[in-house]
Formats: sequence, structure tokens, C-alpha cells
Amino acid sequence: MGEFELLAKLRERLPEAGRRVVLGSGDDAAVTVPGGATVTSVDAIVEGVHFRRGETELRTIGRKALATALSDLAAMGAEAGEAYVVLGAPSELGEDDLHALLDGMLELAQATGTAIAGGDLTRAPVLTLAVTVVGHAPAASDFVTRSGAEPGDLVVLTGEIGAAAAGRLLLEDPSLAAAVAEPVAARLRARQLDPSPRLGSGRALAEAGARAMIDLSDGLAGDAGHLAHASGVALEIDAGSLPLARGVAEVAAAAGQDPLQLAVSGGEDYELLATLPADALAKAVSRMGDAAETTLVPIGEVAPGGEVEIRLPGGGRLEALGYDHFAAP
Amino acid sequence: MGEFELLAKLRERLPEAGRRVVLGSGDDAAVTVPGGATVTSVDAIVEGVHFRRGETELRTIGRKALATALSDLAAMGAEAGEAYVVLGAPSELGEDDLHALLDGMLELAQATGTAIAGGDLTRAPVLTLAVTVVGHAPAASDFVTRSGAEPGDLVVLTGEIGAAAAGRLLLEDPSLAAAVAEPVAARLRARQLDPSPRLGSGRALAEAGARAMIDLSDGLAGDAGHLAHASGVALEIDAGSLPLARGVAEVAAAAGQDPLQLAVSGGEDYELLATLPADALAKAVSRMGDAAETTLVPIGEVAPGGEVEIRLPGGGRLEALGYDHFAAP
Repeated sequence: MGEFELLAKLRERLPEAGRRVVLGSGDDAAVTVPGGATVTSVDAIVEGVHFRRGETELRTIGRKALATALSDLAAMGAEAGEAYVVLGAPSELGEDDLHALLDGMLELAQATGTAIAGGDLTRAPVLTLAVTVVGHAPAASDFVTRSGAEPGDLVVLTGEIGAAAAGRLLLEDPSLAAAVAEPVAARLRARQLDPSPRLGSGRALAEAGARAMIDLSDGLAGDAGHLAHASGVALEIDAGSLPLARGVAEVAAAAGQDPLQLAVSGGEDYELLATLPADALAKAVSRMGDAAETTLVPIGEVAPGGEVEIRLPGGGRLEALGYDHFAAP
Repeated sequence: MGEFELLAKLRERLPEAGRRVVLGSGDDAAVTVPGGATVTSVDAIVEGVHFRRGETELRTIGRKALATALSDLAAMGAEAGEAYVVLGAPSELGEDDLHALLDGMLELAQATGTAIAGGDLTRAPVLTLAVTVVGHAPAASDFVTRSGAEPGDLVVLTGEIGAAAAGRLLLEDPSLAAAVAEPVAARLRARQLDPSPRLGSGRALAEAGARAMIDLSDGLAGDAGHLAHASGVALEIDAGSLPLARGVAEVAAAAGQDPLQLAVSGGEDYELLATLPADALAKAVSRMGDAAETTLVPIGEVAPGGEVEIRLPGGGRLEALGYDHFAAP
């Protein structure tokens, strides 16, 4: 089957139009009427770099490609709008495989109110998915950037950390699963393979008055550093308050690693780290409850300076390394 | 050098803000205020599929990646706005190489008024560039889709065709260059390696009342077929009126190919094919003159039906095959 026939078959499954989308996939470009302000982010995942094809179903890979892109919109406090997908397919993938990838993307698109409004299909030596997402808000000032944190703000974190990193360890060495009950191991693997973008949490935090926000793709330590640097502030994080996911301690120990070190530097949590004025915390917790996605905990404070300090309960600080896909082999 | 340092160095060269861009690269997402309606298109080029790295400089590859994406905006009659670039880099590319790619993109971005407002950098087994472009107009109805052609319309074509296909032949078999003078061969190669998006022509045709438009990426025959199918009309094209670029006839003959066949099915011309009411031709020619980009010639008429017929001067019709990157080895 040639490019045009296959593209036509994949396009049949995409919406022709929708909210803000005047014309979807199939012409030279999609036509939209955005309304207020938009945020746009691109995110690519490459086989052998960001995922291994045998570790999970293609449907889950498709979902993760869209999820990691949408996570950037969550970190701006945006409402998800449109997605545009470049699919680079090695020749051994058949038509059913491409439909499975699209199945996963369409599932998450529907769950998040995202319209897949365009794309490109090409040959590539390994499976490559590049996803551009566009999010919306009434005005540009409604978005929360990384750069608005102010000394005195509370530092808050959605959900739990470390699960994706522990899941990666379990996928690389299945014998480590003996350290935890199987449902716990399954949940850790799922957090690595099938993350959820915190779109509801991001909007809740924006509405509650978050001053700065970032999503955790590189690990809490690295991403806190990005936020601190962008805002020109220091983040003082209390290691004892960090919510590690169930099973992280056991899997890390079985792998001979420090659980806290793994959790803050392991990457791919796709939770949100935000700062907000102390008197906005109650409102943030309440709005997070309405979003019904996950929990919110305060983990530290913003101070003058430009560093991140993760203070250990017994005194001293944790040396944390960022997660670097580009330097990885 | 790690991802963050390298990204920071590349980002330093991108605009922080600009027309419609409130916040450029460096946060979780770029923030824009589009105003009216937008068009969005994604286009990927992959080493070994769409280009060979040794054939030209990285700067030119960067320019082509952006040019082919912008060509889709030209085909909508849009004003170029923002671009978002995914750069998949094999490990043997150094920092200078990535800057050279970006040099080419920034050159064309500046020439076309495009702001490179975001991107992603990742490892990939071969050089991969995926570019998302966003174009603008006051209202969605200002854009020209593929589907508005009406029987009785004239079919018009910007510029000349066949040069990129002849250039591809010259790159694959340098001995064919003996068929033409060296400046002619150089121009044919340049049309293959370094195409120009017809943004001014696209806006001129839209303003003059074009009813349907498409850019020629797959070859005149194939793209005329896409437009005919989308509009539910037939296109009757007079082969004798097709403007073949200088040297195409000689290079095709030297390669043992029919020049007309090569020109209509070779692909990558990145000219615009449009239909318009006959009484709009004079205005279109005048607006094209103002845009000062290239020429405009009528090449046929729209009729009822749903086929493309390329009529040969001596009677009969040309059998034309579309160009298919996906089916290519």
C-alpha cells in the first residue's frame, strides 16, 4: 500500500472539524480559529532512545507520545486543543501496526479533549513519533511559565515521584520484581510506559494562582533547577516531604540504589512542580480535588538565590543529577 | 556536551518574542496570540529517505526542511507565522553541525518573516527534521483549500516544473551533467536541494480570488489529482502549455526518460497549482507581479467529473504516476 492510500485510511479516523478546528487533516494544512492565546510545544520520542518496541504494545507507545507532549501543556495551565503527529515508520511495520499506534493516540485524545488535526507519515529507520500540541486560554497572562516564582512562595508537587524510574529498572531487570508484590510492580511499569498528562491539575493550579510551573520529565532535581534558573530564585526542598510511589524504595534497594536519589533524578514522572503564595495553598488543594486527578503536597519553599537544595531529614543535602536523554547512549 | 547545555546554546539564537509571539523557546511551551485564523502543517524529512547527507551542506538541509513545511502554508494563501522544529541528531553530528542546520533555518525564517518559536532536540539513528509551521490570516474564509474548484475555472501554475526531478537525476548520475551547460545543471541541482516556498505567490493568488490551491510536492500529476479529488471536479491540463524548466528536456533525454513524463511525475517542484474564475486571471497576474517571486501561466481548465487529464499536443493523453516517498525503498 502506498503513502496516499495509507494516509487516507489513517485520516478517515481523524475528526474533519471540531471545536476551534474549521478544517482537520487532509488539505495542505489544518485551519483553526484559536480565540484567545495559545501555547505550542513539540516533543519527539525515538525507538531505542526513549522506548524499546518490545517492552509494550504499539497502542501504549502511541499514547505515551501524545501524553508526554500534552504534559507540557499541563505545565502551562492550558486547556488541550489540537495535536499534529509526525509518524516515522520503519518498513517492517504494517498497516495494522500504524492503526494500533493511532488507536492509542485517539484514546488519549478523546480522554483529554484533544483533536488530532493533522500529521505526516514518512519512512524512518526506527519508529519515530514527533507530536506538536496546541493549548488554549482566554489570554496569554492566564498561562503559568517557569519564570514567575517569588521568594516566600510554597513549592508544591502533584502526585508521587520515582515510579517511572523504578518501572524502568523493572523493565531492564525483571528479576527485581521479586522485591514487591506483582500489582505494585505492574503499577510501576505502567507509570514508565503509560504516563498521564496532568491537564486538570495544571488548570487547577493556574486558577489557584500558581506563579511558576514545570512538568517533571527530567526528574525533580533537574526540573526544579530549570524552574529556579528561569525564575532567578532558589528552591529549598525538604526531602522528607517528597511523596515516593509505593514500591520505589524496595525496587531501588534491590537494584542497589538509593531510593531518594532514584526518585529525584530518575525522570519521566510527568507530575507538576509549581510555586504559589502560601495563602493560595488551600484554594489549590480544593481545585485539585475538583479536578480529581491526583494529590497535591507542599515540598518546600522559594528563597532568594538561584539554586536547588534538597535537604535531607538528618541534615545535609542530596546531590542530584539530571536525566539526560541526549547524552544517553 | 549534554542536552541542556546544547539546547541552551541553540535557543540563544532564537527570538525570545516577536510579532504574535509573547514567549518563545525555553519554557514548557511557546505562548502566542494568533489574532484571527491559523493554518498548521507538519512536514518531516529523514536522511536516506528525503535527502542524502553528502549531497549538500547541512545549512541547505536545514533550509529545505523549513522550506517544504512553509510551502504548505503558501498553498493555503497564508502569511507565515511561527515554526517549531524537532531535530533528531545522530551521535556523529557535533555542535557545529547542529548550528549549521539552524543557520539554514534561521536564514529562511528571516527571509519569510517566520519566528522559530520552539523545538525539541533528541538522538536519532539518522538525521531527522520535523517542522511544524503556523500561518495566519484575518479569517478562516481567507484561506484557500484544495476543495473549492468549480467547473469553468482556469487552472494556473506558478513558475516552472521538472527542475527538481532533473536535479535529482543529476545528483544520482553526475555524468548526465554533460547534457547541459554547467550553470544550467547547477540551477537544476539547486531546485532539488534548496526549494523556495511560494509564500508571496500564494497570498497573491488568494487575494486575486483563487478557489482551490495546492503545492506541488508529489508532482503535478499527483497533486492535480489530489485537488481534483478534493473538489470533485476534473482538471483538463494542456501538456503543451506546461512550463518546463531550462535543461529538463536535455537531462531527461540523456537519462533515457520522456521530459514531460519526468516533469509531471518527478515531484518536489514546490510550485503552486490553483484554480480561479477566468475573469480573475488578470488580477492574479498583476498581484503575482507585485509579489515579484515568479511567473504565472494558465495550463488548463476545470470540468465536471473527478479525473485529471493531461492532453498531449498531438492528441492522446499522458499516463502519469505520482511520486511516493513512502513506497520508495
